[in-house]
Amino acid sequence: MDTAELAELGQQLRVDSVRAAAAAGSGHPTSSMSAADLMAVLLANHLRYDFERPEHPANDRFVLSKGHASPLLYSAYKAAGAIEDGELVTFRKLGSRLEGHPTPRRLPWVETATGSLGQGLPVGVGIALAGLRLDRTGYRVWVLCGDSELAEGSVWEAAEHAGFENLDNLKVIVDVNRLGQRGPTRHGHDLDAYARRFQAFGWHTIEIDGHDVDAIDRAYGEALSTTGQPVVILARTLKGKGVAAVEDQEGHHGKPLPDADEAIAELGGPRALRIRVGEPPAAAALRDRTTEAIRRPRHDKGDEAATRDAFGAALAALGDARGDIVALDGEVGDSTRTEEFAKAHPERFFECYIAEQQLVATAVGMAVRGWVPYAVTFAAFLTRAHDFVRMASISGSGINLVGSHAGVAIGQDGPSQMGLEDLAMFRAIHDSTVLYPCDANQTARLVATMAGLDGIRYLRTSRGKTPVLYDADEEFPVGGSKTLRSSAEDRLTIVAAGVTVPEALAAADRLAEDGIAVRVIDLYSVKPVDAETLRRAAEDTGCLLTVEDHHPEGGIGDAVAESFADGRPVPRLVRLGVRTMPGSAAPDEQLHAAGIDALGIVAAAKLLVEEAVVR
Amino acid sequence: MDTAELAELGQQLRVDSVRAAAAAGSGHPTSSMSAADLMAVLLANHLRYDFERPEHPANDRFVLSKGHASPLLYSAYKAAGAIEDGELVTFRKLGSRLEGHPTPRRLPWVETATGSLGQGLPVGVGIALAGLRLDRTGYRVWVLCGDSELAEGSVWEAAEHAGFENLDNLKVIVDVNRLGQRGPTRHGHDLDAYARRFQAFGWHTIEIDGHDVDAIDRAYGEALSTTGQPVVILARTLKGKGVAAVEDQEGHHGKPLPDADEAIAELGGPRALRIRVGEPPAAAALRDRTTEAIRRPRHDKGDEAATRDAFGAALAALGDARGDIVALDGEVGDSTRTEEFAKAHPERFFECYIAEQQLVATAVGMAVRGWVPYAVTFAAFLTRAHDFVRMASISGSGINLVGSHAGVAIGQDGPSQMGLEDLAMFRAIHDSTVLYPCDANQTARLVATMAGLDGIRYLRTSRGKTPVLYDADEEFPVGGSKTLRSSAEDRLTIVAAGVTVPEALAAADRLAEDGIAVRVIDLYSVKPVDAETLRRAAEDTGCLLTVEDHHPEGGIGDAVAESFADGRPVPRLVRLGVRTMPGSAAPDEQLHAAGIDALGIVAAAKLLVEEAVVR
Repeated sequence: MDTAELAELGQQLRVDSVRAAAAAGSGHPTSSMSAADLMAVLLANHLRYDFERPEHPANDRFVLSKGHASPLLYSAYKAAGAIEDGELVTFRKLGSRLEGHPTPRRLPWVETATGSLGQGLPVGVGIALAGLRLDRTGYRVWVLCGDSELAEGSVWEAAEHAGFENLDNLKVIVDVNRLGQRGPTRHGHDLDAYARRFQAFGWHTIEIDGHDVDAIDRAYGEALSTTGQPVVILARTLKGKGVAAVEDQEGHHGKPLPDADEAIAELGGPRALRIRVGEPPAAAALRDRTTEAIRRPRHDKGDEAATRDAFGAALAALGDARGDIVALDGEVGDSTRTEEFAKAHPERFFECYIAEQQLVATAVGMAVRGWVPYAVTFAAFLTRAHDFVRMASISGSGINLVGSHAGVAIGQDGPSQMGLEDLAMFRAIHDSTVLYPCDANQTARLVATMAGLDGIRYLRTSRGKTPVLYDADEEFPVGGSKTLRSSAEDRLTIVAAGVTVPEALAAADRLAEDGIAVRVIDLYSVKPVDAETLRRAAEDTGCLLTVEDHHPEGGIGDAVAESFADGRPVPRLVRLGVRTMPGSAAPDEQLHAAGIDALGIVAAAKLLVEEAVVR
Repeated sequence: MDTAELAELGQQLRVDSVRAAAAAGSGHPTSSMSAADLMAVLLANHLRYDFERPEHPANDRFVLSKGHASPLLYSAYKAAGAIEDGELVTFRKLGSRLEGHPTPRRLPWVETATGSLGQGLPVGVGIALAGLRLDRTGYRVWVLCGDSELAEGSVWEAAEHAGFENLDNLKVIVDVNRLGQRGPTRHGHDLDAYARRFQAFGWHTIEIDGHDVDAIDRAYGEALSTTGQPVVILARTLKGKGVAAVEDQEGHHGKPLPDADEAIAELGGPRALRIRVGEPPAAAALRDRTTEAIRRPRHDKGDEAATRDAFGAALAALGDARGDIVALDGEVGDSTRTEEFAKAHPERFFECYIAEQQLVATAVGMAVRGWVPYAVTFAAFLTRAHDFVRMASISGSGINLVGSHAGVAIGQDGPSQMGLEDLAMFRAIHDSTVLYPCDANQTARLVATMAGLDGIRYLRTSRGKTPVLYDADEEFPVGGSKTLRSSAEDRLTIVAAGVTVPEALAAADRLAEDGIAVRVIDLYSVKPVDAETLRRAAEDTGCLLTVEDHHPEGGIGDAVAESFADGRPVPRLVRLGVRTMPGSAAPDEQLHAAGIDALGIVAAAKLLVEEAVVR
């Protein structure tokens, strides 16, 4: 397209953005209008994308990091012929695919859900990494950012990652419209301020007037010819560009224009340009993803092994069997044992350093491209990426997250290193799966199983050794549990998982010596939970005692309680968990201090059984 | 101290670090040894700190961002005469104040808990901001960082903040020992790489040999004489410096030295230097913190008002009454209504831009200095700072966090903007308080009340208007609830909070029309929860139906279930919550789609009451 046509297309995108927001009665037209020319030139002259085949392996990838500018995105889809005008004006309405912020759950051309700022670039880095090191079909990753979101540290975490990895397939555009939500950004229109920062992280920078379509066109050309470095185009723009009533003025963020008809007239009225977006190149066949049978590591019953060790070996074995498995490390691979995978499959191992947001974002980016990522760090530090996990769930992203060193059982390192909130965090994520194995064979099974699930899957591993309780051929379906002790005389059921399972068994043995029979359930699948078994145990024994190395809120106790939240009569439920702030101490001292070791369980169980007698 | 003495002191800190880790059988001596000379020169020649009076208003503040180097910190405390040698060797043992990672809960000289990397600098920025803009007693904030943690985006979020705010009282030292946990860092000993990054963010940088005590001394002098900019000293060091068996070698992270006795001999044996740390200057009296009676905004019963509006007005009023209240905004102050405070008290308002980790870290830093911060953004985006909240709780920090735009009730913006996990996140934080008001007068009361609590306090506000249910003089104690409908014939209790309270009341009215009396409880205090009232309702009505604008896990349903987790018989418990992934739609459509509006409650209640009849 030539200059005049590009300018026309930019105006069309503005008009359609104004129309969509007017129809909705809400939305972000002014933030769309600033970036309209940037989008027009990209769409018309540089993007290579087959809207009929969003899964095309050589399609460029486009991420709207400033997700609130969704009217611009949807207007671009219309210009490209992907949606009709009638759909455009369903924007933000019940049942429409055109949500306030774009999500891939509903639109096939959206790579990742955005709307929490500072996440589009990190996910784009993940996709670009997959493109450069795994897919190699030549696609480019375009990310359109706002300037406000450059205040997020995650942007610089991503910038560091991209610069270090020389991601020259990553082309970032920043719409520097100088106005945030409540007022001016820190740096206003000072493009140099942003350029200095990106350059320091090893990027090639280009500064332009973001409303000069020829300059934009040249900038994209320069970006595409730049090798060895990621590129950022810093574009000086005006929020609300083209409509005098709002252009470059404060107080118009996130609102329809005051007079849409007048604005549309001022923009030259509606247009009906349809453009032919460039074709992706013929792509080489996708990488080999044949799957062999997994030679799962086998552990002997009666031995001892840490579940983190079992995880490392199982992940490496899974990588042997499946060519689509990738592993991501938060620079703790020696502790989490992800280094086993790194040794076996260095080409599919990605070091993300101490940068948990980028760790999870890289996983999301890999999953966008069909890879099956395992992102691994300490359970405690996954809280750093909570917002990324939340957004990944909105994307419907299929990622595996593994948190090691869970709970007070880590011992001396103290509370900063203890995951004591992770079960609550992951259980509250929509459509998540939460697994917490207690032995090595169970871990090995679950590591392989989780790869095939939908949504966010979390596996919690432990630092210290635990006895191998299960045979290597035992199966552990998601949503299941194992009843380890059971008799007709059971007067109580102890529900444990992970490190508290051996404690529960020891407690059951001591209680048996005192003539008190108890049931013991290993609740390795914390979500979904085996409600049927728990309900039967409740009917049989009348009282469930949960024991978890986690704060009492949101973890196993809650998972069990939810099994009875359908209106049925509930048994007596008692929770043991970590109720005080731990310090440093040996693992056994920590479990004891928290009251979740065998002694603590015995004491609680006796109290409950005696109470029952009194009643 | 002169060169020779400083070098001796550095060796003493190394020896004591080795001894402490050897006594513990774990810990990080090599990461301590790299920074020993940096610490020695700071302690002997530049720090101004009265160990007898850690609360001295003009004390310098020291933050060990690389918290795993705690042996170095404790060795410094010993050299300064703050602890005895006998205590040093209790390191990491049960009951010792000398934890694996330092915490202010146990040691009065520690400003903030560290151990989750990349958090010391952000909190240091918060303290420095308090020093420069509020306290003005001339203290300097020293932060000792590791090089690995510079991969965390939060470090650059903080660097941006400090540079923009010209925090020239902030003096950061980076111990560039080139080795992370599992291997080399991205940039090894390339000090220039770090210098370029900090300079781009507006910092003054100094590069030195971190084992040359004279160079270190000069660098501190230069740092202290630098005005208008924050300063970072980039020090080239060797991990394990001084002991050939480990010096500058991989594989020795986080382990005691292989032969402590030999290492101590190689370091020249134990020393017993005691140093006199410089005195802080006589400080001007602390700022006026007199408290007047709060002229709480009053809302008329029967009116409608959004709780976010009530929050904004109440916070401004609280600021009128109390000079120690500060407000922090994540660049959404117009939406959260924090701008009301900004208008009334601009000198105590801090714009943190779209940077939620720094938002919370600034709050923690302000609280370190005795200010009472309210950090405010959308509820959804507080998940971005989860790890900072977790660490603040380990610090025992008293901060107020306010999340607006909670739940599907926000309507059209879609799931990325909806806080649907926030209650689960905050409930699982140790010693937290979680408040969720439903009307304007309740909000106004709770905003003032939360200021006086210990620990992390969270208030959840709503976007849309809700009816004013309570009189302006009604009181709302933390841990309480309000029973809004009650009769002897109640066959069910609806437990609601926030936006579901008016829905519950409407449901109760409709059920009454059908001759079904139900109780309605407003559970504004989600944690601690009013167990007594809930238990009485259970006894009276036999069934509790919770209704919440939150995912079903970890929120109000769980809070209610926990009230019965002491072994007592449990009533029937049923949870209504947001079980599907919302899209865009109007607020009332969203509540309806989630089944948490009056109609959804009526339907569930009828089912339960009928079931009870059948049984």
